[in-house]
Amino acid sequence: MDLQETCVESNVVYDGCLLHVRRDEVRLPDGGTSVREYITHPGAVAVLALKDNGNLIMERQYRYAARGEFYELPAGKIDPGEDVLLTGQRELLEETGYVASEWVHLTSTRPCIGYSDERIEYFLARGLAQQQRCLDHGEFLEVFELPLGEAVDWIRQGKISDSKTIVGVLFLEKYLKDWQD
Amino acid sequence: MDLQETCVESNVVYDGCLLHVRRDEVRLPDGGTSVREYITHPGAVAVLALKDNGNLIMERQYRYAARGEFYELPAGKIDPGEDVLLTGQRELLEETGYVASEWVHLTSTRPCIGYSDERIEYFLARGLAQQQRCLDHGEFLEVFELPLGEAVDWIRQGKISDSKTIVGVLFLEKYLKDWQD
Repeated sequence: MDLQETCVESNVVYDGCLLHVRRDEVRLPDGGTSVREYITHPGAVAVLALKDNGNLIMERQYRYAARGEFYELPAGKIDPGEDVLLTGQRELLEETGYVASEWVHLTSTRPCIGYSDERIEYFLARGLAQQQRCLDHGEFLEVFELPLGEAVDWIRQGKISDSKTIVGVLFLEKYLKDWQD
Repeated sequence: MDLQETCVESNVVYDGCLLHVRRDEVRLPDGGTSVREYITHPGAVAVLALKDNGNLIMERQYRYAARGEFYELPAGKIDPGEDVLLTGQRELLEETGYVASEWVHLTSTRPCIGYSDERIEYFLARGLAQQQRCLDHGEFLEVFELPLGEAVDWIRQGKISDSKTIVGVLFLEKYLKDWQD
């Protein structure tokens, strides 16, 4: 069964500071047409920074869109043309002040296929050493450590509700237990 | 450390068929101001429909925003004023043709805290019986069964990359193994 939809016409309908929205007319599998609206996004990298003692480096951050504070993995957008490993290294240092000697790409996911082309690349970072963090202008966040097992408990309890972080933590737990070889 | 941002002014900047975008001026924790743009979304429900033989009811669907086919859980938007359990029951029946005798709320997540207020409620549905599906106009998808363990393998391999589905499958695996009591 062919499910593909093809572009008939594409327009930028909102070009903001952060959000860029397109509205496309598409040809459906049955020959009819429909409208698809979606965010164009540069992609992002999320980092599972794991200390030798088993603690993850986490962030507490207020997210205005979702009107609340969230416990999150360090993460940030890919700069134009930037290698995703460099994005991970840059964001970890900027937001938390950590550098890491060992980087492993874990997986690539699509956080919002209904209305965004965003992808998130996940890295495991080990061999951590603390340097100086340097937040972007207008960025406010608190860094803390959380044992991996406790992060899993927080997911069970709903205390961690950010999907990007749930995916990373549960993937990492499987990776360390069952998937490493 | 107080991280909260408060609204100074809020405007709808794009009001489309599917997407609704707001652009707010906000007061930052340090007293400065900034701009936040985000999608307003009614919220969604995703269903882990598990047959007695251990198979999950899955969907294969083309997602135009992400320009590809994805393996996904049945899911859909909450209608205005609709109870989320009813959304789950409605979407499962409409998209797959299944009804379920047992429903358990698993968790509530935020798929996209950077630029959307969407939440996703997850239900486990058991005691399945097949009736007649009834897709929305312009909706094309294929329904198939996948053993839960194989779904976990597909996540490891990156064959399942939709975050909504990764969260649901890995949460369900933990729930059935470790979290049920």
